Amino acid sequence: MLTIYGMADSGNCYKVKLAAEQLRIPYRWVEVNSAKGETRTPAFLARNANGKVPTLGLEDGTFLPESNAILNYLAEGTPLLPAERLARARVLQWMFFEQYSHEPYIAVARYILRYLPPDTPRRADLPRLHERGYQALGVMEQHLAREPYFAAGRYTIADIALYAYTHCAADGGFDLGRLPAVQRWLDRVRGEPGHVPLG
Amino acid sequence: MLTIYGMADSGNCYKVKLAAEQLRIPYRWVEVNSAKGETRTPAFLARNANGKVPTLGLEDGTFLPESNAILNYLAEGTPLLPAERLARARVLQWMFFEQYSHEPYIAVARYILRYLPPDTPRRADLPRLHERGYQALGVMEQHLAREPYFAAGRYTIADIALYAYTHCAADGGFDLGRLPAVQRWLDRVRGEPGHVPLG
Repeated sequence: MLTIYGMADSGNCYKVKLAAEQLRIPYRWVEVNSAKGETRTPAFLARNANGKVPTLGLEDGTFLPESNAILNYLAEGTPLLPAERLARARVLQWMFFEQYSHEPYIAVARYILRYLPPDTPRRADLPRLHERGYQALGVMEQHLAREPYFAAGRYTIADIALYAYTHCAADGGFDLGRLPAVQRWLDRVRGEPGHVPLG
Repeated sequence: MLTIYGMADSGNCYKVKLAAEQLRIPYRWVEVNSAKGETRTPAFLARNANGKVPTLGLEDGTFLPESNAILNYLAEGTPLLPAERLARARVLQWMFFEQYSHEPYIAVARYILRYLPPDTPRRADLPRLHERGYQALGVMEQHLAREPYFAAGRYTIADIALYAYTHCAADGGFDLGRLPAVQRWLDRVRGEPGHVPLG
């Protein structure tokens, strides 16, 4: 059986849980609290030298890190990942967008407001995080005003990747009220069979 | 014919050029200078709403952004991208590592030192960029001490993605002298058939 090393409140870890649930893949969940340093222990670094969750423990005894690589691994050969070359590239386009242009702003703003004390000097980063985060949300809004999902005209792992931190963006001080197409897409994703909430 | 919208000195754009050359895929190169605002014009934003190069112009008239998604598109069905499920996931593991844990530090340090004036306040970011960049290089060193390439035991698009900003890391103030396995891997990549330099 697969083992997901993850932190329940992390959006990156939630992606893997959501895909495993929707694909009905059995898994064992091992809670690893990165806020308590549990991703920097020698035992954990032997699984993922980059010291991050999620990390997937495979049946052959090896480990696969990187939430979006794990999603591709789990979804290969299923309706959540198209087989056609350009459709696959579009799925990856949005997954790389998520990790480069979305998560570093939207997830980090959530981290500062949810996990750090109110007097943390990192609150000074919030205006820049909000500016960049709203840019990413604006790119999503523009796409979703024309298309129901991010790639291939249907629900894929690109939607799972972007849902993870978008649906809880308010935790980071983002107001999704200005983004009607994003809101309708969030509702569509929540309505997909087998959906489970964060946590 | 494919069109690569790119900036010749950008490592992310170089990835696409290097793969196209090694795969002998004909392309037209359109130079787009992001430092002069050419990625924020209405004409360019119609190609990529996220306003970034590289962006690939496809023969069907649509556009594909995100360097690593483009690499996957170009390499599908070639020796640069394995067909087997876990090997593909390992390629993606290192490509997501590159965009999340490597490029935001190593490429950004290079950008500050190469493109901004010597008195830019952003030089204050360099100690943190160097700390995080050396962490990423350390993860690469540990892997390359055991393996000749990043995935599947052979040269793949994961190596192209990581070569792009690692081979010019000195531009950002990084000293690769401490990283013998990384240096041997850089030499191996430079020796691959059809290799072309940045620029």
